[in-house]
Amino acid sequence: MGNVILHKSISLDGYVTGPDVSMEHPLGRGGEALHAWMFGSPAPVDREVTAWTTASAGAVVCGRRTFELGLPHWEDTPYPAPTFVLTSTERPPLPARSASFTFVTDVVAAVKQAVAAAGDRDVVVMGAETGQAVLRAGLLDQVQLNLVPLVLGGGTRLFDGVSAALEQEFSISSPAVTHVRYRVTYPR
Amino acid sequence: MGNVILHKSISLDGYVTGPDVSMEHPLGRGGEALHAWMFGSPAPVDREVTAWTTASAGAVVCGRRTFELGLPHWEDTPYPAPTFVLTSTERPPLPARSASFTFVTDVVAAVKQAVAAAGDRDVVVMGAETGQAVLRAGLLDQVQLNLVPLVLGGGTRLFDGVSAALEQEFSISSPAVTHVRYRVTYPR
Repeated sequence: MGNVILHKSISLDGYVTGPDVSMEHPLGRGGEALHAWMFGSPAPVDREVTAWTTASAGAVVCGRRTFELGLPHWEDTPYPAPTFVLTSTERPPLPARSASFTFVTDVVAAVKQAVAAAGDRDVVVMGAETGQAVLRAGLLDQVQLNLVPLVLGGGTRLFDGVSAALEQEFSISSPAVTHVRYRVTYPR
Repeated sequence: MGNVILHKSISLDGYVTGPDVSMEHPLGRGGEALHAWMFGSPAPVDREVTAWTTASAGAVVCGRRTFELGLPHWEDTPYPAPTFVLTSTERPPLPARSASFTFVTDVVAAVKQAVAAAGDRDVVVMGAETGQAVLRAGLLDQVQLNLVPLVLGGGTRLFDGVSAALEQEFSISSPAVTHVRYRVTYPR
């Protein structure tokens, strides 16, 4: 069984988007810079991090917001893997090019279905709100932060009003960004 | 000439103290854990980071709060170097065991005096509020974050309502903590 992991590019002040998120600016003002390390001519380390994440993603759990904001950009599932979208109302599955979107109304059920679909691979959790819900439900195994040298001054916080203990698993860096993987050790 | 550098141990949610800072708990609830990597039996990398910082500190700039909360614990200047304390009212210098505290009412003057006192060495800026004031004044050269695997859920934010662009200079890690040094590149 793989891990349930939250991957996030985060600013030094803890934001995963800039201020004023909208359909036109799904990452808020200045927030695109959080993902710049992945595009253009990424450093070999950064290219490998992206390649691992894609290869290890056996299923995805995301929120409705990530789905609605992301879909027009991706024109597919975010990773080539079954994607479980947390929604408040039931709706039929939506097939996409690589895999299907399945809509689930309960976070525990969504993670459970994703774990079953992922087999030996990881369940990648997307979105700050969904990440916090999975963390609160005690179902998050790992967090991987891509620490980007930016102070955004506002936006969506990755962690907001939650607390957790973690252990560092590894840390690697390119000239542009530092990637740190943590294991979540809930105060049980 | 050295650099004006802000060193900070920071949680994954961007806090440099836990909630409820007081004289008894200068690092707030749970905030001591931010500095645990320095004490006990630190890893060689962590021991070196502490040794560098101490060796490179030619002068210190801190706020009145850091001075008042810290002094009873340190019983000396925080580093063995002239320490410039930002205050609202003038007061005479206070000699300590290793060096003197000098009280300055203006952030630009405090940094200028500290740079002169530091010679070839660095000016270490202490405290979140003072760090932000120095950043806003355009006088901060570097930030070094010691990224601690904790989500505190509340406390004092290192950056609050400021924005900045930075470049990563290096990143090293022990099993406990990741140290990342940044150069501040203000949007000029």
